[in-house]
Amino acid sequence: MSTLTRGFKYYWEDFKVGDRIRLGSKRVTREEIIEFATRYDPQPFHVDETAAKNSIFGGLIASGWHTGAMAMRMMCDAYLLEAASMGSPGLDSLKWLKPVRPDDRITTYRTTLESRVSRSRPEMGIVKFYWEVVNQNDEVVMSMEGYGLFARRASGESS
Amino acid sequence: MSTLTRGFKYYWEDFKVGDRIRLGSKRVTREEIIEFATRYDPQPFHVDETAAKNSIFGGLIASGWHTGAMAMRMMCDAYLLEAASMGSPGLDSLKWLKPVRPDDRITTYRTTLESRVSRSRPEMGIVKFYWEVVNQNDEVVMSMEGYGLFARRASGESS
Repeated sequence: MSTLTRGFKYYWEDFKVGDRIRLGSKRVTREEIIEFATRYDPQPFHVDETAAKNSIFGGLIASGWHTGAMAMRMMCDAYLLEAASMGSPGLDSLKWLKPVRPDDRITTYRTTLESRVSRSRPEMGIVKFYWEVVNQNDEVVMSMEGYGLFARRASGESS
Repeated sequence: MSTLTRGFKYYWEDFKVGDRIRLGSKRVTREEIIEFATRYDPQPFHVDETAAKNSIFGGLIASGWHTGAMAMRMMCDAYLLEAASMGSPGLDSLKWLKPVRPDDRITTYRTTLESRVSRSRPEMGIVKFYWEVVNQNDEVVMSMEGYGLFARRASGESS
C-alpha cells in the first residue's frame, strides 16, 4: 500500500452492502440558488424570480447541477474527507424528480448496493452506491446510482 | 400551446436525431477549480495544491460536479436560453473519464440520439442527447447521456 493511502478512517472494507445512512441536511437559500445558477445554469426559472413565477415551474427552482453539488458536499462532510478515496468513474443514473425551491431543507441518504475488488488494480475496491436527496415533505427530489473507488485497508492499517 | 412557451427560437422539432454540434469552449482556471470545490467538493485534490501533488492524481483536478456545471453553462449559452425548455428528468449515464486540470481548455459537443412526443403530455417532446466534454488534447474528459424536455412548436409559431 502506498503512503498516499495511509492514515484514513474509511477504506473500501468499511462500505458494507445493504447499509443505509443519513449523510447530512441543509437548508437551501434563494441567494445560493441564484448565485450558483447565475454562473452555471442561468435559465430564467433558476435566476429570475419574476420569470420563474411565469414559467412552468411557478417559482424559482435550483439548478439540478446545484442539487448534485449540494449532495456532493454532504458526502464530503459525512465520509469522503476521511476516506481513502481514489475518485469516481461516474454515475449509472441521475434523476431530477421534483423541484428544489428556496427554503427547502434537503437531506441526503446513501445506500451501499455492491462492492468488489478491482480486477486490474487489486489494491483498490469499487463500491456502487444509491443516493437519495429528500425534502422536508419526504419527497425524493433527486436520486443517483454511481461508483466510488477506495484504497483497500493494508494488513498493517488499524480499523 | 400556453403563452409560457411562445416566442422561443428552439422547440422540440428543432432537435434532429443524428445532429452533432459544438456547444462552446472554455479555459478552466486554477482559481475557479478551487473556488467551486471549496464550497461543494473540498477533497484535498480539488482544493489544496500541495495535497493534490501528493495525491494519486499528481496535481490539482476539478470536481466532477464542476465539470458538469461548466458543460451545463455551455449548453445554456449555445441553445437552452433560447429554447422552450421544460427542464430535464435526468441522465442515464455520467462518466468522469480523465482529470480536468488548471489551464485545460474544454469543449462540449452535443449529439441528438432520440426524439419522441410525450405520451402523457402531447404538447411536449422528449429528446435524448449524448454530450462529450473534450480537452485540448482531444481526450474525452466527461461524457453524459440524458434527456431534455421541450415544448412542441405550435402550428402558428414561426420556424
